[in-house]
Amino acid sequence: MGKFVCFGEIMARLNPPGYLRLVQTQQLEITYAGGEANVAVSLANFGKNAVFVTRLPDNDLTKAAMRRLRGFGVDISRIAIGGDRMGIYFVEKGASQRASKVLYDRKYSAIAQAQPSDFDWDGIFEETEWFHFTGITPALSDNAAQICLEACKKAKEKGIVVSCDLNYRNKLWTGSKAGTVMGELMEYVDVAIANEEDCEKVFGIKASGTDVTGGMLSKEGYGEVARTLAERFSIPTVAITLRGSISANDNHWAGMLYQKEKCYFSREYLIHIVDRVGGGDSFGGGLIYALSSGFEPQKAIDFAVAASCLKHTVEFDFNEVTIEETEKLMNGDGSGRVQR
Amino acid sequence: MGKFVCFGEIMARLNPPGYLRLVQTQQLEITYAGGEANVAVSLANFGKNAVFVTRLPDNDLTKAAMRRLRGFGVDISRIAIGGDRMGIYFVEKGASQRASKVLYDRKYSAIAQAQPSDFDWDGIFEETEWFHFTGITPALSDNAAQICLEACKKAKEKGIVVSCDLNYRNKLWTGSKAGTVMGELMEYVDVAIANEEDCEKVFGIKASGTDVTGGMLSKEGYGEVARTLAERFSIPTVAITLRGSISANDNHWAGMLYQKEKCYFSREYLIHIVDRVGGGDSFGGGLIYALSSGFEPQKAIDFAVAASCLKHTVEFDFNEVTIEETEKLMNGDGSGRVQR
Amino acid sequence: MGKFVCFGEIMARLNPPGYLRLVQTQQLEITYAGGEANVAVSLANFGKNAVFVTRLPDNDLTKAAMRRLRGFGVDISRIAIGGDRMGIYFVEKGASQRASKVLYDRKYSAIAQAQPSDFDWDGIFEETEWFHFTGITPALSDNAAQICLEACKKAKEKGIVVSCDLNYRNKLWTGSKAGTVMGELMEYVDVAIANEEDCEKVFGIKASGTDVTGGMLSKEGYGEVARTLAERFSIPTVAITLRGSISANDNHWAGMLYQKEKCYFSREYLIHIVDRVGGGDSFGGGLIYALSSGFEPQKAIDFAVAASCLKHTVEFDFNEVTIEETEKLMNGDGSGRVQR
Amino acid sequence: MGKFVCFGEIMARLNPPGYLRLVQTQQLEITYAGGEANVAVSLANFGKNAVFVTRLPDNDLTKAAMRRLRGFGVDISRIAIGGDRMGIYFVEKGASQRASKVLYDRKYSAIAQAQPSDFDWDGIFEETEWFHFTGITPALSDNAAQICLEACKKAKEKGIVVSCDLNYRNKLWTGSKAGTVMGELMEYVDVAIANEEDCEKVFGIKASGTDVTGGMLSKEGYGEVARTLAERFSIPTVAITLRGSISANDNHWAGMLYQKEKCYFSREYLIHIVDRVGGGDSFGGGLIYALSSGFEPQKAIDFAVAASCLKHTVEFDFNEVTIEETEKLMNGDGSGRVQR
Amino acid sequence: MGKFVCFGEIMARLNPPGYLRLVQTQQLEITYAGGEANVAVSLANFGKNAVFVTRLPDNDLTKAAMRRLRGFGVDISRIAIGGDRMGIYFVEKGASQRASKVLYDRKYSAIAQAQPSDFDWDGIFEETEWFHFTGITPALSDNAAQICLEACKKAKEKGIVVSCDLNYRNKLWTGSKAGTVMGELMEYVDVAIANEEDCEKVFGIKASGTDVTGGMLSKEGYGEVARTLAERFSIPTVAITLRGSISANDNHWAGMLYQKEKCYFSREYLIHIVDRVGGGDSFGGGLIYALSSGFEPQKAIDFAVAASCLKHTVEFDFNEVTIEETEKLMNGDGSGRVQR
Amino acid sequence: MGKFVCFGEIMARLNPPGYLRLVQTQQLEITYAGGEANVAVSLANFGKNAVFVTRLPDNDLTKAAMRRLRGFGVDISRIAIGGDRMGIYFVEKGASQRASKVLYDRKYSAIAQAQPSDFDWDGIFEETEWFHFTGITPALSDNAAQICLEACKKAKEKGIVVSCDLNYRNKLWTGSKAGTVMGELMEYVDVAIANEEDCEKVFGIKASGTDVTGGMLSKEGYGEVARTLAERFSIPTVAITLRGSISANDNHWAGMLYQKEKCYFSREYLIHIVDRVGGGDSFGGGLIYALSSGFEPQKAIDFAVAASCLKHTVEFDFNEVTIEETEKLMNGDGSGRVQR
Repeated sequence: MGKFVCFGEIMARLNPPGYLRLVQTQQLEITYAGGEANVAVSLANFGKNAVFVTRLPDNDLTKAAMRRLRGFGVDISRIAIGGDRMGIYFVEKGASQRASKVLYDRKYSAIAQAQPSDFDWDGIFEETEWFHFTGITPALSDNAAQICLEACKKAKEKGIVVSCDLNYRNKLWTGSKAGTVMGELMEYVDVAIANEEDCEKVFGIKASGTDVTGGMLSKEGYGEVARTLAERFSIPTVAITLRGSISANDNHWAGMLYQKEKCYFSREYLIHIVDRVGGGDSFGGGLIYALSSGFEPQKAIDFAVAASCLKHTVEFDFNEVTIEETEKLMNGDGSGRVQR
Repeated sequence: MGKFVCFGEIMARLNPPGYLRLVQTQQLEITYAGGEANVAVSLANFGKNAVFVTRLPDNDLTKAAMRRLRGFGVDISRIAIGGDRMGIYFVEKGASQRASKVLYDRKYSAIAQAQPSDFDWDGIFEETEWFHFTGITPALSDNAAQICLEACKKAKEKGIVVSCDLNYRNKLWTGSKAGTVMGELMEYVDVAIANEEDCEKVFGIKASGTDVTGGMLSKEGYGEVARTLAERFSIPTVAITLRGSISANDNHWAGMLYQKEKCYFSREYLIHIVDRVGGGDSFGGGLIYALSSGFEPQKAIDFAVAASCLKHTVEFDFNEVTIEETEKLMNGDGSGRVQR
Repeated sequence: MGKFVCFGEIMARLNPPGYLRLVQTQQLEITYAGGEANVAVSLANFGKNAVFVTRLPDNDLTKAAMRRLRGFGVDISRIAIGGDRMGIYFVEKGASQRASKVLYDRKYSAIAQAQPSDFDWDGIFEETEWFHFTGITPALSDNAAQICLEACKKAKEKGIVVSCDLNYRNKLWTGSKAGTVMGELMEYVDVAIANEEDCEKVFGIKASGTDVTGGMLSKEGYGEVARTLAERFSIPTVAITLRGSISANDNHWAGMLYQKEKCYFSREYLIHIVDRVGGGDSFGGGLIYALSSGFEPQKAIDFAVAASCLKHTVEFDFNEVTIEETEKLMNGDGSGRVQR
Repeated sequence: MGKFVCFGEIMARLNPPGYLRLVQTQQLEITYAGGEANVAVSLANFGKNAVFVTRLPDNDLTKAAMRRLRGFGVDISRIAIGGDRMGIYFVEKGASQRASKVLYDRKYSAIAQAQPSDFDWDGIFEETEWFHFTGITPALSDNAAQICLEACKKAKEKGIVVSCDLNYRNKLWTGSKAGTVMGELMEYVDVAIANEEDCEKVFGIKASGTDVTGGMLSKEGYGEVARTLAERFSIPTVAITLRGSISANDNHWAGMLYQKEKCYFSREYLIHIVDRVGGGDSFGGGLIYALSSGFEPQKAIDFAVAASCLKHTVEFDFNEVTIEETEKLMNGDGSGRVQR
Repeated sequence: MGKFVCFGEIMARLNPPGYLRLVQTQQLEITYAGGEANVAVSLANFGKNAVFVTRLPDNDLTKAAMRRLRGFGVDISRIAIGGDRMGIYFVEKGASQRASKVLYDRKYSAIAQAQPSDFDWDGIFEETEWFHFTGITPALSDNAAQICLEACKKAKEKGIVVSCDLNYRNKLWTGSKAGTVMGELMEYVDVAIANEEDCEKVFGIKASGTDVTGGMLSKEGYGEVARTLAERFSIPTVAITLRGSISANDNHWAGMLYQKEKCYFSREYLIHIVDRVGGGDSFGGGLIYALSSGFEPQKAIDFAVAASCLKHTVEFDFNEVTIEETEKLMNGDGSGRVQR
Repeated sequence: MGKFVCFGEIMARLNPPGYLRLVQTQQLEITYAGGEANVAVSLANFGKNAVFVTRLPDNDLTKAAMRRLRGFGVDISRIAIGGDRMGIYFVEKGASQRASKVLYDRKYSAIAQAQPSDFDWDGIFEETEWFHFTGITPALSDNAAQICLEACKKAKEKGIVVSCDLNYRNKLWTGSKAGTVMGELMEYVDVAIANEEDCEKVFGIKASGTDVTGGMLSKEGYGEVARTLAERFSIPTVAITLRGSISANDNHWAGMLYQKEKCYFSREYLIHIVDRVGGGDSFGGGLIYALSSGFEPQKAIDFAVAASCLKHTVEFDFNEVTIEETEKLMNGDGSGRVQR
């Protein structure tokens, strides 16, 4: 089994306990997470040889983050050490009509200030089967975008599968800059992942007849979006997550896989949320696991959606669920009955 | 901009963490709150010059309560110091069919034992635009009722707008005593606020066709109630909150404003509750902000209901939300999607 | 009033706070509970002279468990001291599609290793009115099953009412072994309690037309099950709890009492769950209280179901509710409105 | 074995966690304690039939306090129910040069407002061997003092041993009033307990050559004090605790027993304090246990001082130590080596 | 009474609970503090009109920090809003031989990136009596140093007293750069404060015969240091704190004031530490209060040292003590006896 | 660099927060630790290739324990999976005269019930440089002792250095049985580690003139003990830890290394303890690191004692300190001054 290399940022995630707002709290919970790190942990939890690549400063936060990743079995030996600071983000958990709120303090982070010379992609990619990144990484800085591009090119050369989750963040860059940068990167991508807003904000591809704030999902619209994306960039596999937000506590959640001009839809779950940050990443982790394990398309999307459904019931970003739990849900038992 | 003077009691609020019952817990969370203090904090959060007037003993609980209020920008310079104790209340958060439970230990509090001479209303009301109190204050003691009456008369003399939230508490007095005392005070009131039970319990004015425990609200009935109240006491503006209690976790919430023989109804929200104590006060705070800022009646009731809807998602009594968050909800986005 | 003797195991219950998974947590909450201890506490809370009989080692966990029981007024003077260890169980609270998970570490516990000579049933049963045990106790070990049988025989001799909650645990024994052992014990039982799975797993008695994971309940089917059980073992009173699991957070909950060929159904509650462990035991406690207090069958089942509905809103196994709260719910106010 | 009746107040004790000051904290720890309740718990922990008598209002705090006491095996059946409120006290744990600080909110408590008719001393004193109260109880109100006097007279009539801990609290009354009231009560006392300040503040009996704030203790001076007290009120047994306060963290602690004109001094311990509230009460509990168990004077004072030394290492007021632990320390092992 | 303007940085302070190391913890306590903000809070607690001036970004951390400061009565109206981030520092509390450890994440903070034009010193200094800053502020950036210099010049012009705590931080700049920058600023300083290392590291002025790690203090040496500093920069008043570090838990603490060629030494305290971060700042706050209130030199140094001694017993940076507590200690009661 | 294989038990360690006693607490902190696991973590923290070998059941506690170990970089691939349960121990932190107390619930653990066939020592010992076990492992069961013996023999065959910490636990076996079993194992040991009680309890070798409970250490006595042990079993290197217990909070701590008839004594530290469980293991970890890195005897014992001194300031069993921190202390800075 080859390695699964995930490249991006890991940050300290600080959140008040429960539903407290940041301005109220005297306590914070600290974990370490980030879009690509979350995928790496999902893959490790599903038994894959995950490698996480980033740049981190030489301090105790880094030591803690690396210990957490290594605890899951993620290979941290390729992390570059240097720079001034680890990025931080603060999460306020929303409830009912009050939205969750993320405050980023990630500017000037070690990875945003990295140089291409910090990463030896030839070495990193030895015995590698899969390369994953998200649209957050190139959004961090021009250097980071440049490094992504180099990694994509190198991966392509070596025949490594490349996956990318568009993951548009409007606090990091504009849709128009994202469109330019991501457009170039998409040329190298074999598996594209997007949510209901990404395609529109980044590439102007819109799901017709969908109102995400109203909690309604249009299957046809998403099919169009996936086809357009696949065709524009010649991407063989496109996966789209479908979130219908009833409130900050209750969401509909489903996914679609587009391959060879066919759409495969998962079941739609109604989720009472524990923590939705990292939900999309757990979809990516489940999907990469499923596709790389040779699952049929329908089973692959079912696994990815079940895995990410369960993530919404787990505190913090990392998806602390097993293959068995995921398959049990995917095969139909979502009743939440006590196991004893 | 003139001052907004709120007069009443502030207590130490002690609640077990989460859903623990009082008899189970070894820990309590301590905040400081009270009907009129909650309104003062809402007004300060919305940018008004709020002043909170009460009487408190000279001890460390008072120091803590004053620090909290001052932190929000509430003017505490008019608080009278004296008396034996600060009132305390214990809150057990309910869930599903188990109701939240409040245990009052507020008898003998400094404000209940206050004398009229403790308050110099001429000084307090300098440069004042609005005076607010609730039906809790006169319920504390005959002295407190007498002080309220003096304040109302003085406010009237000076042309200050007077608002009163009926806020009937059957643990503090009987409906019949409340009717007599509040009836006299109502003569001075320009803006009356009430919930679905107050008007009936205090003045015997009942919304026909409404079953509050069943979660159903009758718009017509509330219109009648408001009109009757407005006419009986010649009150220009009457606002009524409409709560439909599905369970301790889930409530319907709406409001109505009655002005010049017209009823303005807000949207009705279905709320998954974080903490509903202080919900009514946040309505009062939102309404006073809106009316004093010159909002049209429909916008005023929409703002007050949106503000108080959000309060239900915030821990503790104070409404920790901004004008921007309130307007976003009032303008239609209640989907609770993550902001990042 | 005679004594109510409950015989079984009490364990240390360790659970992570909130919705954390066991593998994530650095903290655990510790309480002490078990099927029959939970019933004893319910009975004590409802004013009965409850006695809890078990075997525990001589250490500080035992001291803590006994202090907790005695605090509720449960008589602990008949607990046998000896053995190597107290059983422990870890509970992970589920959410939405993720089920709650119980990890038992109860093998080799003092009660599982008890000898018949550890218990003097003649002494224990002095002035006793009721004897209660559950299907968990005989599942612990052959010795424990033997002790149960002796107790049942002795109770029968003395004209003590015997109740048994089938409480099948497939982590402790097989359905087939359970069928044999429980079948023999059932001969002595006056009041049998079972949930939707027990009858099928232990005695192969199945409610036709019921899909427990789908949240749907069939009244007719449960009537058949109760009748079959009552007739097979000549049990005068059979009570069945009906749980429909929508998700780990939301359950339907109801109950049925079968007496003299008649079925009495309770109202069905939709519960937003705080902690469902101990839910069945609180039904047993409520039912024993009701039957022994001479309630009519309909009122008895209504009380038992209301009591256990409320238990689902209380943290930990013990049912911390009063007769008044239970009767208020049973008489119709499940709106969860604040009491103040 | 007869009963040991302790009469006084039990309050909710609220303290911030760790060394936080009251004005800083958002959390409080809640336990239930009071001078005489602390003695009752010590006696129950040492195997005596302790009975705690007080008056408490009918609410959930009372329910919690009673559950805690009953958990220790203290008989609560003689507690009178009635009145407005339970007393509360807030404790700020001191450190180094910053003293611990107690904020009382006990005025108007149920016991302070009790009537003599609330207590049936004939019934309470059935099969009673010992009666204990402290100088706090008569300080609560004139009624409480009157009830103490009645109890003392009744105890004397019945030949019950009466012990009293002077326990002077200058936040409750003046030394001069204390002198008058306590002087009358002392006539009935068989065992008097006092600390280094009580005798001086209440009766003007001063230990010459002692500077309590300097941490120095004068053995001779204490001998004089005890003799004077014993002779003035014809008290057969006088015990004095000797505290030398180096800082809020570190205290010297010793005791002296005076009987038949002889002084018995304990060892002096240097204690690194965990929680010193209740330290004096644990001395009283140890002493009553020792004297009533027929210990020789030297052994009695050694036991009482060892028990109370250990109390200083235990959080909250109650002395959670065993006879074995106390005897181990009293017999010389204070090295604190791990037991494993 | 004029205003006391403090200029510098306020940061989010994040520390693990208790003695946990950063790499171990899943929780952090969050407060907001900084050298000059700490002085402002001390001054406000002692009744002075403190104003805190800094630059902060427009986000919820700023809102929280401002709320905390305003709660103490500190004027926050002169804080400039702008920039990318608030500085953060992580504190690991040391114990015994393990030192406390501070991890700064303050680079790129709003105040470090401030421009001179962000501050209108003419406006800020209206009705101002005192200006305070520390050596940390000019260490943040060249811009910050430039702003300090402008403020000093403007203060001088207006006859405002200027105080500066050298506060050398070797994680922020080198001793040599500090020497140059601070040397220029010292020309404007009326009251210089320094600890045992600052003078040596910044200006090469060394206390002969002192070994700070050994816990020994040389009075003579400190006198020389103060005189040299006073003479080199023509500073009328120099204060030096003397810390002898026995271990991370136990420190000797004293201070010296040098005025008109005379040295005034305080008592030396042996402190068992709760939290020593902010200890030096609380000395500064106490000294400025004392000098500006017209205390004689001996009383001024006694007050400043007593205030800062007490700070070491208080959690977090701010000195939560009163004038009364400080004077009680300064007048000799450091025994830490309970107040009740 | 070869591997460092540590063989023994890892347990769930459950302790109440702070100084709470087990009987009081409603919360526990959970970590995973054990004598040999603690050594493995120390070695990994010092950069060695540590491997931990044990047997654990297939459940979530095992998953958590393995994640923690792997996080430190400890190789867990050789852990055998099987058995009924993981051992548990409860730790009550002592204070002053109250000793820390350990309650073991480790009987019937997977490792105690292991079979020799569970471990393939040939495979485990590939590329191994060092083998470490302690006297706890053979104390668990006869099987465990047998497995230790096999491992020792195999290690000897392969020329692997064998170290053993006597670690006598009188709750697990008698001194006499320990003497027999350990005596046989000692034949294979190259580095023996013992504390002040082990040699006496296990082999009857006593340090003359030492009173461990009195806090006094005799250097000469310890020299004799080491020499006797070395000679009796032909052990080239013997290390002895010297603990003088002043109280549960304050200990003297030192160590001695005996090699080639010479005694090397470390400095003696006076430690104010945070958590002393694991203190001895951290000495072992430091010593093995030092000896295997080729340190001279004096430097080796200095390093081991400094490392373990620091461990006493760290919560939980694992020694969370770096080589740099250890060397800083060993080279003389134990002043605990803040690093910033």
